[in-house]
This record gives sequence, C-alpha cells and structure tokens, in this order.
Amino acid sequence: MLAQSLIERKRDGGRIAPDEFRAFARAYAAGDIPDYQMAAFLMAVYWRGLDRTETAALTDAMLTSGDMLHLEHLGIGRVDKHSTGGVGDKVSLVLAPLVAALGVAVPMMSGRGLGHTGGTLDKLESIPGFRTDIPLDAATRQLERLGCVLIGQTREIAPADRKMYALRDATCTVESIPLISASIMSKKLAEGLTGLVLDVKTGSGAFMPQLDRSLELARTMVALGADHGCPVIALLTAMDRPLGRACGNALEVEESVMALRGEGPADLMEVTYALGAEMLVLGGAAPSLDEARRRMTLAIADGRAAQKFQEIIEAQGGNPGVVDDPATLPQAAAQAVYVAPRDGLVARVEPKTIGRGVIALGGGRTRVEDLVDPTVGFVITARPGDVVRAGQSLATIHARDAAGLAAGRATLDEAIRIADTVEEAPLPLVSHRVTAEGVEALA
Amino acid sequence: MLAQSLIERKRDGGRIAPDEFRAFARAYAAGDIPDYQMAAFLMAVYWRGLDRTETAALTDAMLTSGDMLHLEHLGIGRVDKHSTGGVGDKVSLVLAPLVAALGVAVPMMSGRGLGHTGGTLDKLESIPGFRTDIPLDAATRQLERLGCVLIGQTREIAPADRKMYALRDATCTVESIPLISASIMSKKLAEGLTGLVLDVKTGSGAFMPQLDRSLELARTMVALGADHGCPVIALLTAMDRPLGRACGNALEVEESVMALRGEGPADLMEVTYALGAEMLVLGGAAPSLDEARRRMTLAIADGRAAQKFQEIIEAQGGNPGVVDDPATLPQAAAQAVYVAPRDGLVARVEPKTIGRGVIALGGGRTRVEDLVDPTVGFVITARPGDVVRAGQSLATIHARDAAGLAAGRATLDEAIRIADTVEEAPLPLVSHRVTAEGVEALA
Repeated sequence: MLAQSLIERKRDGGRIAPDEFRAFARAYAAGDIPDYQMAAFLMAVYWRGLDRTETAALTDAMLTSGDMLHLEHLGIGRVDKHSTGGVGDKVSLVLAPLVAALGVAVPMMSGRGLGHTGGTLDKLESIPGFRTDIPLDAATRQLERLGCVLIGQTREIAPADRKMYALRDATCTVESIPLISASIMSKKLAEGLTGLVLDVKTGSGAFMPQLDRSLELARTMVALGADHGCPVIALLTAMDRPLGRACGNALEVEESVMALRGEGPADLMEVTYALGAEMLVLGGAAPSLDEARRRMTLAIADGRAAQKFQEIIEAQGGNPGVVDDPATLPQAAAQAVYVAPRDGLVARVEPKTIGRGVIALGGGRTRVEDLVDPTVGFVITARPGDVVRAGQSLATIHARDAAGLAAGRATLDEAIRIADTVEEAPLPLVSHRVTAEGVEALA
Repeated sequence: MLAQSLIERKRDGGRIAPDEFRAFARAYAAGDIPDYQMAAFLMAVYWRGLDRTETAALTDAMLTSGDMLHLEHLGIGRVDKHSTGGVGDKVSLVLAPLVAALGVAVPMMSGRGLGHTGGTLDKLESIPGFRTDIPLDAATRQLERLGCVLIGQTREIAPADRKMYALRDATCTVESIPLISASIMSKKLAEGLTGLVLDVKTGSGAFMPQLDRSLELARTMVALGADHGCPVIALLTAMDRPLGRACGNALEVEESVMALRGEGPADLMEVTYALGAEMLVLGGAAPSLDEARRRMTLAIADGRAAQKFQEIIEAQGGNPGVVDDPATLPQAAAQAVYVAPRDGLVARVEPKTIGRGVIALGGGRTRVEDLVDPTVGFVITARPGDVVRAGQSLATIHARDAAGLAAGRATLDEAIRIADTVEEAPLPLVSHRVTAEGVEALA
C-alpha cells in the first residue's frame, strides 16, 4: 500500500516525506515495488515536480541505497567534475589528470554515451586495454597512489538510482530537473567529495537547451550539494556547437592528449581551465582562480599533466604509449576530407546532428547492448563565424568503409550550414557561474 | 519505440491517432509492451486527458482486442444497463429479468465488488449453484431461449481492457474520466447492443462524488456510444445514501426477489423503473416512458418478472427455489438489531462507511483473491430525514459471530448520524437525464 499512497499523493500534487522516500527507494531497490508502480510515480513526479526537501530526500534515499567511497584519510581535497553531457565534450579526460597533478584528488565516476552525447567511459575504453570497471577498494588504492581514478558507476554505488535511471529512459521521464539532479548528485555524493564542479551545458545540443532551464538545473544541484554538506559550483557552458574539434571516441582521446601536451583547441582549453580553476580552489590547492589557471598552464607546459594521464592509463591497464604517440590509438579504416560546398560564412555547426552522426557511424549506442566502434567520428575544423571558400576543407570523416563515409558526408551536409550571414551569435563559451550564494553572469 | 513516442507525446499534451492507439493496445494485450511503459502512459493520460476522438479510438482498440457477441439474429432490441457502482445497488438483479420479461433481450455482463461498492457477480453467486462464468456461445443460446443472461467479463471480451484495468488499480490511474469511459464502453459495446442505459451515481458514495464530474462522465460515455453507433442514455442517480435497505450479497438478492414480487422499497423501485423505462423504449418494446412504466408494474404484479428471474437462475445452475422462498439463501450465523442511541433526526446514512463495513464483515474483497462471505451485511431501515426515538430499531446486522456484530455496530455508529436537524437535503433520487442531444435536469 506504500507505493499506491505515494503515487496517489504525488499525482494530486502533495508532498512526500523524507522517511517515505527512503522506504520507497529501499523497497524499489530490493524489488519489493514493481517497475510499473515506480513508472507511474515517476510520471507523476515529472508532472508535479519535487520541492527542495523532497529532492534532497530522494537523493539521500538513492545515495544510502548503496556504498560510499571513504577518502578522508587521503588528507587532501577531493573534487570531481560532472558534465550534463555534450558533443565533443572530452573535458574530463584533460581535467582529471591536470587537477590531480596539482594536488587535488579526483575520484571520477563517469557514464556511457547517452542519447546524442558521448560518454567518458566509451572514450577511455578506446585506449587499448584501459579498464573502467574497477571495484571500490582498488579505486581507493589508486587514489592513494596517483590522486586520480577514472571509473564507471559500480554495482555498489546508488543501486536504486541505477535501476531507476533505466526505467526513466524507457518511460520518458528523463527530462525532469529534480529527477536529473537527484540522479547525478546521488552518485557524486557517494564519491566522498569535499567539493564538486558542474559543467551544465546550454544550447541546442544540451539536454536542457533553454538557458532558464539550464540555470534551474544548476541551482537545484548546487542546493542539493549544500543540503548534503558538499560545496558545489556550476558553470554554464555553450553547447550550441561541438566543443573542440574531435567528435568520436578515439579521436577525442587523441585531442585530449594533444591538449595535455599544450596543443589543444582554444575553446576546449578555456572550458577546461574555467572548470579546473574552480576545482583547485574548492580542493584547497590554489588560493584564487587566477593563480589556479597559472598553475594549470605550467603543469601542461612542463609535462606534469600529460605524465599524470600516462600514469593513470598504465594503472588502469591501458597502453600508456598513446600519450607519447596518439597514432597508437585505433584508427578508422576509411577517412575522407569534407569540403565547403560554396563560398560563405559558417552559420551553424549543429551539435545534435553531429552527435547522432557519430552514432550512425557506429560510434555510439541506439540500444544499451550495442558495441561501440572507437575509431569512427568527425574532426571538424570549421567554427561558426569562419569565412570559407568553396572546396576548402571543413572536416575529416573517419568511418569503417565507403558507405560510412557517405553517411558521414550526409551528416555534415546537414550539420554545417554555410550562409551569407551568421544567423545568430554563438553562445558565450562560459556564461554563468552558480554557487550557493547565487547566479553570476560571466559574459 | 512506439511506446516511448506515444508516452512522450501524451506527456507533452499531444494527441494520439486512432491507428496508433490500436497498435498500442494490441501490442500491450500481446505482452509486447511492458506494464511499466503502459503505467507511465496511463499517468500521462490521467494528467493530460484524452479528447473525444482519442477516447473513441482507445475504446475501439480495447473492444477489437477481443471477441464480440453477435446477436442480430435474435430479431429484438438488445439493451443492457451499467451502473458506475454504489452501495446497496442491486438494481441489475431486478431490472434484467423485468425488462427481459417484456420483450427486450438483456445480455448483461457485470463485474465484481470494487473499492467500497458491491458487484453484481458476487451478489448472484450467493444464490446456491449460480454460475456466472459462462462462455459466449452458451450465453448466446441462453439469450435465444430466455432473452437474458447474467455473466462476468469473459476472457474473450476486451482482454486489453482487463489487463489495463488491473494495472490502473495498482498505479492510481483509475479516476480518469476518459479511462473509466473507455473501459466501461469497450465491454458494453462488445455485447452487440442496440442500446445502453447508464446509471451514473453521484454523491459521497459514488466514484465521482461531484455532480459536475458525474455529468462529464455521463456525457463522455453517451458520446462514445454515439461514435460507435450505439444509442446511450444516462441517468444520474443519488448515492449519498445506500439504495434500498439491504447491503450485503445474499441480503441484496433477497431484497431483489422481494422487489420482483412487488414488495421492494420505494427508492429501489423508482430507480429500477426509471432505468427500465429507458431500456424498454430504446429496445423498441414500449412506445413511451410512461407506457413502459405501466407495463413494468403489470409484469411485477402478474408474476412474469419473478418467473423470468426463476428461469434465469435455473438456466445458470442456481437454485430457483430462492424466488419462492428467499430463506433458502445462505443466512448469517449471528444477527442483531441496531437501535437508535438517542432521539432525533436521521441526518446521514453514509454509504461509503456502510460499504467498507460490509467488506470488514467479510462480504467484500480487500485483495483480488479474497473469498467473499455471501451472508454478512446490513439491512438498514432508517432513511435520512426519519424522526427516531432512542431504542428504536434502525437496522439489523448480519455477521459471522459476536466479533462481527461488534464490528457491524461500530460501522453503524459511524455511518448513521442522528442529529437535531438534517444537515443537508438528500440528493434527488434521479436528478439528470443525459442523451446525445444534451442534459435534462429532472429534479
């Protein structure tokens, strides 16, 4: 009767008490509440929402349905970064080793590709041998030794969330700010952090394209962190175009390695530095954002960041040679240059189309059980606002075969719009900073 | 992907096309769509509603998920009555033989007790030997011979509705007017009717207590009938107090037999005549409502109605002796008179409390698999507005034992309110008549 009384109350716009949420999540994780009752409840939540207390209680219920990392003994700040997901968003791969190299522990638990966006785990696994399914005790030992571990959500972490997430996907209840926030934060809070930095994407390629909804999502997660005693800072960053140039798993690892070696594209570096500075200050490893930025450029220039990535790869079973020679990453069988069909201005590079194009080439999933081809994707050098001439190279397509190249060409025909004028100004790369104190416009 | 696209569209307030509803219902009935996706869809429908075209399409989809009765060869009108459910509502037991005795075929498919309300099947099964699980072909033969059959929803009729109904119960999506309407009408339209009369209850003991919602439910079902070529007339009747005196399965059969023998309580007879007159006119067996009433009183007075009930009972395996001697019905082991605790006016006889009291005595279900005790219940002679003296008999309690009598006493203490003045006027017994032409206030 518990399930029915909660479904009915939420359906009618009422509130669920913290104890009730805990009992409900525990019973669901244990299989005592069937999926169909949870599905009806989730749709009622999608409709009626959850207030701050309810969202905190749901987060707590999912968090306490599993284990937590206990990292107090490390004696240094423990800060993770989470992105709401984008196209070409390989920031985690650059940021984790960079911040760890500067004395903040980074226990990073990432996800797989979702919808049109890529996933950090899929990217990491394109490094030959790299393993992300590391048990919590081994992850703790690696953190003690290297200050960083890059893993997937283990079975031990927030099992109620894991089960609920799969159900939300099947029942169209994903795009709910309290449900998204509780899902993300229950996993992040299980990492035993002293601080968390969020990269909340906004624009057409983000899960929450509208600025006001992106800001609400950021505020909700920042408040959840505060309610659980974990300081959270969120930056709103642009996802109206892909981030960096590479879109596709191994291609993005290559770009990340280049970034750690000081040769990353400017937009990728800017987002990485903005997020990294917050992490270093939150983690107590830098006195100010400016000083944190200075230290990051140094750690890249003198090779410490790249070396940290090499150590992490080696510790997790991967081939560390990819850092010295990215050409050892798996390469697509077929490659072709994509050229501008006419003179003009690059008006749009539509990230959603690119993301779906990568999946169509085999580089992502349409079903959970799909295998991912690490080699395929795009390297897009054209940026919105660029003046181009007909026949000029805009991108390279990496595919399995000629059919893939044709599909990739069709994707780019649709995604890259050449016009006589720019249709709308690109979003500022980093537009807002959200803390427990409020929202600060940066651009 | 069908399920997800329909859930998403309804979630966002969009419309589902008839073809989509058909494919969805068929896939659900076949087990190709899991309960959790249907649960999310049902909650989205509860939230966003269905318009007239969608409700008709859902009804049609559930109707065509199973078989239909084909009764054209009977050569006479085929009219059923459906009640939205009440306490003491034994109208079907009186009405079906009465109308059949006057030349309209009544293929009546009924349900079991639901929530605080009783069910016709449970009442009929208190007649020793009476069977309601009759296959469609045998039901058709009985209709040819007797013009009436009283059965349950068979496996062959609207299987998608049967499955969806159980799910709605578990997911708090019952009280949705389009879902209620589609569920009722898909079953009724499968009876191959030439007309249908609805008894839509209103007042505190009804599933839709508010008058405006009761009217909306009536209008929706009348429109659904029209869309499927079946004329439907709905009467709104009072359920702010029990109907008649008896509440409990065998007790209600006894009262029905007495009604067929001309000794029914006035309110039960009035509702029966009002609904029966509509059935006889719709079925082409009477030229006007007045003439239909005259014929019904005659058929009761000369014994034809009681004899028809006897024939039906015999045909369905029951002991026809109960019509001549209702004392052959099973009797409760313990009986006690309930008296007025003080002088005053009967201000309320609350039907929901009475209905739940019958269930508490063992006369209804709290779980689908519960067995029903046919003997227990109440016979309540007190009516709202009666002037009573302390110690005067208001009711008799029929229970299994002394503990049951005590529980019954507690129920009546709560349900029958004696006061110095009437709190609010009782609802008019039959207040509105709803047809495809519109709503007519009768009182």
